[in-house]
Amino acid sequence: MEPKAAPTFHKTVETFTSGAKTLPQRYLTSQEVFTKEQERIFSTHWLCAGHQSQLAKAGDYLTQEVVGESLILLRDSKGEVRGFYNVCRHRGTRLCEEKSGHLQAIQCPYHAWTYGLDGRLIGAPHMDKVDGFDRAEHSLHAVSLALWEGFIFVNLAENPAPPETVFAPLAGKFTHWNVPSLRSAKRIEYDVRANWKLICENYSECYHCPLVHPTLAKLTPYDAAENDLFEGPFLGGFMPITKGHSLTMSGNACALPVGDIQGEDHHRVFYYSLFPNMLLSLHPDYVMVHQLWPQSSDRTLILCDWFFHPDAFGRPDFRPDDAIEFWDMTNKQDWHVCELSQQGIASRAYQPGPYSPRESIPAAWDREYLRALGELNRS
Amino acid sequence: MEPKAAPTFHKTVETFTSGAKTLPQRYLTSQEVFTKEQERIFSTHWLCAGHQSQLAKAGDYLTQEVVGESLILLRDSKGEVRGFYNVCRHRGTRLCEEKSGHLQAIQCPYHAWTYGLDGRLIGAPHMDKVDGFDRAEHSLHAVSLALWEGFIFVNLAENPAPPETVFAPLAGKFTHWNVPSLRSAKRIEYDVRANWKLICENYSECYHCPLVHPTLAKLTPYDAAENDLFEGPFLGGFMPITKGHSLTMSGNACALPVGDIQGEDHHRVFYYSLFPNMLLSLHPDYVMVHQLWPQSSDRTLILCDWFFHPDAFGRPDFRPDDAIEFWDMTNKQDWHVCELSQQGIASRAYQPGPYSPRESIPAAWDREYLRALGELNRS
Amino acid sequence: MEPKAAPTFHKTVETFTSGAKTLPQRYLTSQEVFTKEQERIFSTHWLCAGHQSQLAKAGDYLTQEVVGESLILLRDSKGEVRGFYNVCRHRGTRLCEEKSGHLQAIQCPYHAWTYGLDGRLIGAPHMDKVDGFDRAEHSLHAVSLALWEGFIFVNLAENPAPPETVFAPLAGKFTHWNVPSLRSAKRIEYDVRANWKLICENYSECYHCPLVHPTLAKLTPYDAAENDLFEGPFLGGFMPITKGHSLTMSGNACALPVGDIQGEDHHRVFYYSLFPNMLLSLHPDYVMVHQLWPQSSDRTLILCDWFFHPDAFGRPDFRPDDAIEFWDMTNKQDWHVCELSQQGIASRAYQPGPYSPRESIPAAWDREYLRALGELNRS
Repeated sequence: MEPKAAPTFHKTVETFTSGAKTLPQRYLTSQEVFTKEQERIFSTHWLCAGHQSQLAKAGDYLTQEVVGESLILLRDSKGEVRGFYNVCRHRGTRLCEEKSGHLQAIQCPYHAWTYGLDGRLIGAPHMDKVDGFDRAEHSLHAVSLALWEGFIFVNLAENPAPPETVFAPLAGKFTHWNVPSLRSAKRIEYDVRANWKLICENYSECYHCPLVHPTLAKLTPYDAAENDLFEGPFLGGFMPITKGHSLTMSGNACALPVGDIQGEDHHRVFYYSLFPNMLLSLHPDYVMVHQLWPQSSDRTLILCDWFFHPDAFGRPDFRPDDAIEFWDMTNKQDWHVCELSQQGIASRAYQPGPYSPRESIPAAWDREYLRALGELNRS
Repeated sequence: MEPKAAPTFHKTVETFTSGAKTLPQRYLTSQEVFTKEQERIFSTHWLCAGHQSQLAKAGDYLTQEVVGESLILLRDSKGEVRGFYNVCRHRGTRLCEEKSGHLQAIQCPYHAWTYGLDGRLIGAPHMDKVDGFDRAEHSLHAVSLALWEGFIFVNLAENPAPPETVFAPLAGKFTHWNVPSLRSAKRIEYDVRANWKLICENYSECYHCPLVHPTLAKLTPYDAAENDLFEGPFLGGFMPITKGHSLTMSGNACALPVGDIQGEDHHRVFYYSLFPNMLLSLHPDYVMVHQLWPQSSDRTLILCDWFFHPDAFGRPDFRPDDAIEFWDMTNKQDWHVCELSQQGIASRAYQPGPYSPRESIPAAWDREYLRALGELNRS
Repeated sequence: MEPKAAPTFHKTVETFTSGAKTLPQRYLTSQEVFTKEQERIFSTHWLCAGHQSQLAKAGDYLTQEVVGESLILLRDSKGEVRGFYNVCRHRGTRLCEEKSGHLQAIQCPYHAWTYGLDGRLIGAPHMDKVDGFDRAEHSLHAVSLALWEGFIFVNLAENPAPPETVFAPLAGKFTHWNVPSLRSAKRIEYDVRANWKLICENYSECYHCPLVHPTLAKLTPYDAAENDLFEGPFLGGFMPITKGHSLTMSGNACALPVGDIQGEDHHRVFYYSLFPNMLLSLHPDYVMVHQLWPQSSDRTLILCDWFFHPDAFGRPDFRPDDAIEFWDMTNKQDWHVCELSQQGIASRAYQPGPYSPRESIPAAWDREYLRALGELNRS
């Protein structure tokens, strides 16, 4: 493989502004704010819902719950990835019940109305006897869909922002990690009793690492983060990994490098939050992705996938569990403190508290959140 | 037995009107509509709550939850069936905890206030020392009750419509099935995560039978229904059963005929919905009855009883499980697709869909429902 | 031990006023009333939350949920009992997760902010780099706390009524029972599906004893209560115990006398309700205390502790289970009828019913409750 250009990191220097505080209580506990978020953020933004490798061939599908909607994501006969509302046009019946599978066509289990992989109604018994019934008017309702670096993004808005504009700030940034070609080895689903924003804030700082993650803190010094994106919808940077080690239970690399990793990046883990629902963690030997799916003001479903180089699978040195077990342990440590925060924040004694200099990214994340909600100057 | 007059079926011919659509979303998902239904329909209509054979002798009782109210239904010392609110007049305590049983009198388990089977307060320790206390003013609150074809109907309204007027359209219709004399062999209770109206619509058509009920569809052709009641609170008709067969697991009759079944009726199953909560299925060898008890906009408790000729019990050819197992399987197939419909209808993508010519009875049922809710021209 | 002065019982004679009725439905079923109670009663009154013997040495702590707030109750380095909201001043995290334990200092499990046992912030990594950050402004939020007869009372009000004024009517009343020195042998927690007021009413009369408590009714005649406090926040009196017996499974005393019990008090059990959340039951050989913690209009958590003379522990004649088992059985009998009342009172058929002459204390309790809610003349 020919070496590619180094990623174009911003050279701006991050500075910490004293005075930033945690969010007021209502953002983390009120049903009203939750509803507003579901409308203004999760119904209008591009949301990560999977990776193209999870739809390997025509007819493969995933279902994903988004803002209370079940969506069918599938690869059609022409190889395109498409998304549909999982709702029959006859009597509204849920079409696909499984989380994933393979289909020739989409047949409703109730009265056998049948749709092609492109969503067009191709069979509806007895409906030819109904005056004025037109199959073409009864296709499945489609949902907007985009691919970025191989990840599948969905958007419930009628006129979503163009994805090429939205993702422009990240153009070329992750080329070396070869993300579109990677394959998922494992998905773990977590049901966390905490507001999704607490999980984003938690991901965005390592001030908590010494007490919460003793194993992680040995491999990556908690105070050595270098952020290159520190305002806006995409935030993060890298942390060094002790040379000769990897973020695994054994401390050793567990797979082939995911891509054309360059120089110091062999000893770095890159952590980025992609507003609103994706956390992207790029290691030399694997890529971990969290999808956040808020269920209520105090509950979030989290899907975590681990991706590896496609050639890594089946090799004798491939030990994905070494990484998965490491992060499953670390994830659970995080969810636990997020749940404790959720509990305390619900108290009448809670007041926004002061962020430390080690929490500049959570503070920036909060600003972006308030901006998206249209409340940056009101909180 | 002397042959009786044939049932007087209406001779009007059913015609299908193109253009009928399924109900708008709010009727199937909103808490507000649910509350309105509980008030305007379930608190004012006659509701099937059992059969007189379930109260064989004086002192036998059932309890039934109706619109959040626990009712005691019992046979009193004079042999009359009566209904009372299950609430002590002293401190409001629930009197009977069991679903059924036998009583000499109704004694409150808290302070021993005691009521006769006619509801009159007959014992209240120490209350004679209370100035102005009059036992006669502290009888149990009664609920209106009627018997129709041996079935017990209750009505929570203060001035319910006369049952003889309400049931007049069905007069003489089921005489041959001997319904008042039948005995229940089995009750199964189902907790279904679907709106009660989806269950009524499902009961009212066999368009879904080929895919949902492969076993049933072999014994009774899905497209051969002949309806004789196709507008109003009572809807339905018959479907032929393959000659020499019965709707049982084995395909054979499982009991003596329930009554004086005539001619072609030996090969017919009659399905009627009695608005709002009763589904009456008359087979040559048994009668099945569903009671629907809505719990919320997306949940319905269903009681299903199987009734047989009283002389059938104890005979060597009595195999009630052959019928019960058949319909328990078929019921569960129905509940499953109703639950899938409930899920899909909650979507923002749901729109009322077109009924097929095989769904004229669900369309008529919907009209009757909207009429009862006072919204026929508003939906 | 030198005999102390006899308790000063009021000599007023209790008279029963005919005409008192049970509370209207809304007080026992509405969410709105529950919220009002939580604000006007449970957020402003002194609430029993434990006994000083449960915090034996410096660093011992309990956590207790009060009106949705988790509180830390602890003994500090100077031996004082203190209370704090269980909420970190940094990001709001719950500090203590356990129900009880021992601490040197209070360290937040998230980012290691650390507080002394007096609540002062003594450690906050990296915060010295934040302009204007002052540790003194980030102590734990304290909650008002008082000791009465060795019991720990908390009060969430900003300016609570002085406890010495509140408890003045009970001054000297329980001296003989030696309550501050007693030790708890056992706590049982009950989750009861009934409004807390039904539990207070139930505690306040023995009219229900013949049917509900056959074992208790044999040891203490249900109609022999002599009340000495019969209006106001503290209500109750004594009931005789058959001579030579104790309220235990065996009927025998199970421990040393709790204090300097005098004359007839050897054969008496004293039952007092201390509005709003404490039920105090003084026996010759043990003291039982119920704490009531309303969770919703139809659910109450109840903590029940049994206290004994500190010298009783370890003696061969110490059989605490004989008393605990007796009252655990009796408690459950009570909770069951309270749950039945809750069910019946929710009915549209419920109307306030007439109290009997044996229910004068429940009637007085209801008046005090309505007074506290500011609705005595409105119900």
